Amino acid sequence: MQQSCPKHLKHLVVKPGSKVDLGDIDPRDVDCLGKEEAVRTKLEEDVVAIDALQDRLYAEGKRALLVVLQGTDTSGKDGTIRGVFNTTGPLGVTVTAFKRPSEEELAHDFLWRVHLAAPRRGTIGIFNRSHYEDVLVGRVRKLAPKEVIEQRYDQINDFERILAENGTVILKFMLHISKKEQAERLQERLDDKTKNWKFNAGDLEDRKLWDEYQKAYETALARCSTDHAPWHIVPADRKWARNAIIAAIVRDTLEAMDPQYPKMPWKPSDFRIE
Amino acid sequence: MQQSCPKHLKHLVVKPGSKVDLGDIDPRDVDCLGKEEAVRTKLEEDVVAIDALQDRLYAEGKRALLVVLQGTDTSGKDGTIRGVFNTTGPLGVTVTAFKRPSEEELAHDFLWRVHLAAPRRGTIGIFNRSHYEDVLVGRVRKLAPKEVIEQRYDQINDFERILAENGTVILKFMLHISKKEQAERLQERLDDKTKNWKFNAGDLEDRKLWDEYQKAYETALARCSTDHAPWHIVPADRKWARNAIIAAIVRDTLEAMDPQYPKMPWKPSDFRIE
Repeated sequence: MQQSCPKHLKHLVVKPGSKVDLGDIDPRDVDCLGKEEAVRTKLEEDVVAIDALQDRLYAEGKRALLVVLQGTDTSGKDGTIRGVFNTTGPLGVTVTAFKRPSEEELAHDFLWRVHLAAPRRGTIGIFNRSHYEDVLVGRVRKLAPKEVIEQRYDQINDFERILAENGTVILKFMLHISKKEQAERLQERLDDKTKNWKFNAGDLEDRKLWDEYQKAYETALARCSTDHAPWHIVPADRKWARNAIIAAIVRDTLEAMDPQYPKMPWKPSDFRIE
Repeated sequence: MQQSCPKHLKHLVVKPGSKVDLGDIDPRDVDCLGKEEAVRTKLEEDVVAIDALQDRLYAEGKRALLVVLQGTDTSGKDGTIRGVFNTTGPLGVTVTAFKRPSEEELAHDFLWRVHLAAPRRGTIGIFNRSHYEDVLVGRVRKLAPKEVIEQRYDQINDFERILAENGTVILKFMLHISKKEQAERLQERLDDKTKNWKFNAGDLEDRKLWDEYQKAYETALARCSTDHAPWHIVPADRKWARNAIIAAIVRDTLEAMDPQYPKMPWKPSDFRIE
C-alpha cells in the first residue's frame, strides 16, 4: 500500500470494515488543521510539491495516481481540481467527468467507461464523479434492481484492486458539506448571473432526497474503503480547508510513492551535440 | 472566421497561399513585443483572461478551441502548455500528445486518432505534436510514399475545415527556435540529472536532418495555413516571449469568439431552496 496520510488527518480515513455515520462528522469543523493563514501557506507549498512529484512520476513512467472526487451537488469538486491541481496543470493531470451514461456506455457493464478513463502511467487522473454514482444515484433513484446494486460494491473493490496491483495508486475523497451550506451555494447559483447555467432544477429534486443520499454514501464509504483504495471524508464547508486537506494527502501519498528519475544507460560525455 | 490576432503580432500569421522561408524569421527577434517586464505583466493578465473566457465557452457549450503546437525537439511545447494554460487548468484544458502511432492507430488513416482527440465543446484542446507529424517526420524519414504525403496537405485542410464548420476554432503555432538554441537546450538535458530522461539519442539523429525538417515545415506552413486554421510562426528562443505571443493570440481569439453565458428559461424567483 502506497497511500499515505499526514498524522493530523488520519481520522478522515475510513477504516476498512468500519461503519460510517456522516452525522458524526461536522463539515465545518476543521480545528485539526490549525490557523487558516498557516493552512493557506501550507496549501501553496503542497501544490508546488505535487507538481514536482508528478514530474518525477512521469519521468519514472511506471505508476499512476487516481484521485476520485465524490460529493453532492455544489460540494466543490470543480473547485478542488482548480485549487489543488492547476499548478501541476493539464500536461500532467487529466480530468474525466462522469455524466449520465451514453447509449454506448449503457450497452456495457458500469465499469467499462471507468476503465477506459483510467490514468496513463506517469500522470494524475481525476474522476469528477465516478463509478460510485452507480451505487449512489443508482441506489437512491433505483436505476437498477437492488440485487444488482448489492453486487456492485464487491465488483468495485475488485476492479480497484486490479488497477492498484497494476501500478495505479488510488485516493478517494468524499466532499462532505452540510445541507445548510448546499442551500447557500445553490442560492448563489440563482443570484449570480455568471453561475445561472450551473443551476439545474434537478438538483432540487436530489436535495429533497438528501437523507437517502447520505445513507447511500455511508454504505459506499463503509463497503468500499479498502487498503488498496481508501476513502477519506473531507469536511468541505470551508473551501480553503477542503483544498488544504486534499492537497496534504495527495502530497503525502506521492512522497510515499517516491517516484524516481530513471537512471539512464549512458553518461553525458557519450554525446556531442553538433 | 473567428481567429483573431493582435495587430502587433499579425506578421506572425502565415498568409494563406504565401511562400514561407523560415530563414527570414529570427527566432530571437521579439522587438515587436516591447520591454520584457511589461510583456511578462501582460502575459499574467492574458492567462487570467483566457481562464475566464474558457468558463464562458464551457457555459455556452457550443464551440471548442483547438490549439496545435508543433516544433522541433526542445522547442518548448510543454513549457508553452504550462505557461499559457495552467491557470485555466485541467478542468477546461485537455492535452493530447501524439507519439509514435500504435498498431491500432496505424491500422486506420492518419487522421483517425486525431479526430478521436478533437476537443469537446466548451473546452480548449491542445495537440502536443499533431497530424502535422505525418507531413514532417513522415516526409523527412520517408515513412510513406511521396504521392501519399502529397495528398495529405489537402486532406489536412479538408479535415480541419470540417472541424471548423462544426464549431471548433483552430489556432496553429510553430515554435521556431534556432539550431544554436536547440544545442543549448539539448546540452541542458545532458547536464541536468532531473532532465536526463528527456534526452533521446534519436533527437541527435533528427538534429542532423535540421535543414530537411525546416524545409518540411516550410511546405506544411505554406500549404496548410488557411482562413479556417491559420498557422503562426512564433519566435521561440525566448521562453517568455513565446508564451506571451501565444497567450495574446489565444486571448484575442477567445474574445473574438465572444462566448456567452446562456440565458436560462427561468427567473431566480421561480425557485425556493428548502
